[in-house]
Amino acid sequence: MNSGELGCLEGGDLRICGELICTICQDLYNSGWVTGTGGGITIRSGDAIVIAPSGVQKERMRLEHLFVMSLKTREYIHKPLQPLKPSQCTPLFLAAYTCRDAYACIHTHSQEAILLSELFPNSDYFSASGFEVLRHIPRGTKKNGFYSITDTVKIPFIDNTAHERDLHDSLKAAILAYPEACAVIVRDHGIYCWGDSWQDTKMNTEAVEYLFQAYLRSRKIKSN
Amino acid sequence: MNSGELGCLEGGDLRICGELICTICQDLYNSGWVTGTGGGITIRSGDAIVIAPSGVQKERMRLEHLFVMSLKTREYIHKPLQPLKPSQCTPLFLAAYTCRDAYACIHTHSQEAILLSELFPNSDYFSASGFEVLRHIPRGTKKNGFYSITDTVKIPFIDNTAHERDLHDSLKAAILAYPEACAVIVRDHGIYCWGDSWQDTKMNTEAVEYLFQAYLRSRKIKSN
Amino acid sequence: MNSGELGCLEGGDLRICGELICTICQDLYNSGWVTGTGGGITIRSGDAIVIAPSGVQKERMRLEHLFVMSLKTREYIHKPLQPLKPSQCTPLFLAAYTCRDAYACIHTHSQEAILLSELFPNSDYFSASGFEVLRHIPRGTKKNGFYSITDTVKIPFIDNTAHERDLHDSLKAAILAYPEACAVIVRDHGIYCWGDSWQDTKMNTEAVEYLFQAYLRSRKIKSN
Amino acid sequence: MNSGELGCLEGGDLRICGELICTICQDLYNSGWVTGTGGGITIRSGDAIVIAPSGVQKERMRLEHLFVMSLKTREYIHKPLQPLKPSQCTPLFLAAYTCRDAYACIHTHSQEAILLSELFPNSDYFSASGFEVLRHIPRGTKKNGFYSITDTVKIPFIDNTAHERDLHDSLKAAILAYPEACAVIVRDHGIYCWGDSWQDTKMNTEAVEYLFQAYLRSRKIKSN
Repeated sequence: MNSGELGCLEGGDLRICGELICTICQDLYNSGWVTGTGGGITIRSGDAIVIAPSGVQKERMRLEHLFVMSLKTREYIHKPLQPLKPSQCTPLFLAAYTCRDAYACIHTHSQEAILLSELFPNSDYFSASGFEVLRHIPRGTKKNGFYSITDTVKIPFIDNTAHERDLHDSLKAAILAYPEACAVIVRDHGIYCWGDSWQDTKMNTEAVEYLFQAYLRSRKIKSN
Repeated sequence: MNSGELGCLEGGDLRICGELICTICQDLYNSGWVTGTGGGITIRSGDAIVIAPSGVQKERMRLEHLFVMSLKTREYIHKPLQPLKPSQCTPLFLAAYTCRDAYACIHTHSQEAILLSELFPNSDYFSASGFEVLRHIPRGTKKNGFYSITDTVKIPFIDNTAHERDLHDSLKAAILAYPEACAVIVRDHGIYCWGDSWQDTKMNTEAVEYLFQAYLRSRKIKSN
Repeated sequence: MNSGELGCLEGGDLRICGELICTICQDLYNSGWVTGTGGGITIRSGDAIVIAPSGVQKERMRLEHLFVMSLKTREYIHKPLQPLKPSQCTPLFLAAYTCRDAYACIHTHSQEAILLSELFPNSDYFSASGFEVLRHIPRGTKKNGFYSITDTVKIPFIDNTAHERDLHDSLKAAILAYPEACAVIVRDHGIYCWGDSWQDTKMNTEAVEYLFQAYLRSRKIKSN
Repeated sequence: MNSGELGCLEGGDLRICGELICTICQDLYNSGWVTGTGGGITIRSGDAIVIAPSGVQKERMRLEHLFVMSLKTREYIHKPLQPLKPSQCTPLFLAAYTCRDAYACIHTHSQEAILLSELFPNSDYFSASGFEVLRHIPRGTKKNGFYSITDTVKIPFIDNTAHERDLHDSLKAAILAYPEACAVIVRDHGIYCWGDSWQDTKMNTEAVEYLFQAYLRSRKIKSN
């Protein structure tokens, strides 16, 4: 393992991934989708995945806080010098990487996910149709194309657990059971969303969150 | 066609247009009116129109991503070196340029447009009166003057289509049928808004979106 | 009259006032209280008042756009080189300067002002009590002290008019009739708010807008 | 007492605390939790506590505005050269420092605190359960661990008073009566929130405010 302060994050693709993580953490903080230390993000370059730490404020994330893990061996290629722990989302991120060959994964604590959990307490999935934004949501991966506005998109719900790591099995099961979903809603908690690249992942997250907002506002205006 | 990386965007008026597109894309992203890769903008300088690409994140748009087209010949004067496609809104933007002699056009994915579609499922247009902001909305072009607060402004609805390009005919028809409108609402989708200059276009967009918000909030408070 | 590009705005107190106007215009734009070219601000230094132009986007305001007028003679000490017009709010700002010896005045197009107009169509004033923020609202001027949380603050309504300048007489009448108000609500339009310094004016505006928001949200939660 | 302009804020830990106060004041202003001159923050380094002044706009706070007090002697180690007064929250901040061995304290004027006061006019505390964000809220201090999602968190209410300083006794009583709370809600006013470090304090504040928002939105969607 590289013992320099930045190690393999010093340059090349991994540095780019690391810098993107810091920038996108700031974006996510500004959007209100992460708060305190909630939420997280990981970006992959080949076999190496860059992971943010646990407990660091998202809007103050820096390169020297980040971890790098080998997807194949699950060993850390690089750890920060400071005594930090990797994100508690790491096992969940690994599920997205391995079940879907994703290249990034974002975990938000969006309140819209909580509200949808309340609205559909007994549903296995959230579904919506008729919104333009469906054209921006891939059928699991963009290799399968995107939804059309008359399609019905389904995004599975899973129950929340006492510890983030305990979400692993149900998250993996939902990813496998809904091959045309690019996100999973964790009830009363937030979403996990992935994509074929970091750009796709960020755009998928924004599209899914936009759908949630538009759905909730649209439902409310109809009920008035 | 110019083969340099920036080509005709290197300097002069076209560079200014290009830089404005990048800045305004960031503004639109911050406002929540574009998300993921939704929405778009074009600015014109004489016969040349500068167009943003499809699929690039709005808040990361740079000069080297942009296209330049001749309004007369419809041929590209400049294309980005990267393998990008021009905005899917291009035919729609062209309709605004040719039917109205506009000098810029903005396409938002504002959720207020979706909500108005829900509220008025059978109307040909949205109408409002009594708001101060009407004084900031031109009668199609500012050459015709602006609305007064006691006037009724009408903004036409058109139905959404499976592909952005298929909106062309109905958008053009609406532009021609409502000569005193500076915007069209695409149901469940967003708006197209144009103006006599890029400044007018940005101000018209903000004024129309403000009217939508104020109308919706005002309607809700009356119904409580 | 000074014919240099910046003239008397080149340095000293007037430059500071001018730079503050540009910065605060950006702040107001970010807050959503001005939009398109709506809203405005003026700051005074002795006999000289610095005024923003009409029709310039608030978030792009620069020193070279500004006017300077003598409060005593009502003549322009400095005009921008560009063919701009002074803010249509100028007569209204003058009313605040002369009736109250104010040192700045802000005009917002806040939607909360519109909503309060709807809620109280027949009232001469908006009133509220019990909110902590009352302790931050002066009795017209801070020389008279501030409200306490058990006091009732009254902010007068005036009707909107077809032209901004036509608000002058009713605004002046409201300022004189409500000596303990630091703001006036123009129905379906926005507010005018002033203070003993630019800092006071900005803080008064924020306090009054906060009161409007808190009042509206509080009323709604009680009615559910 | 140090008579230089920055004095003991010139360097070292105290300068870091001072710079953090300025940055976090800007963050709080952007979040809408402080407005005008409402709200406040203090950060501690050993026996020295850095305190923001009263009456300075939060988004324009600078090092030269700050006070430093000895926690033990309650004397000022450093005062700003300008004729400023220390925050009116100082006695309240001292209660958090002494009753809880906190290392920072944030006072917000969040409207959610006002709304919860309205909803629960006769309750001694606000309580909530089932939200993921509970895992980010410490049992008073993180030395006692964090809540789990099935726990019920209780945050005490205290009544507002005519002067900020008069809150002292009831705030202290609430801090002592609710050893597992990291915040107190002042009715119709805002919250006081503390933590084991400035990072914890900022994260606790965000977590508590997030809980308030999620609770209010969730309650509303259930009642529709």
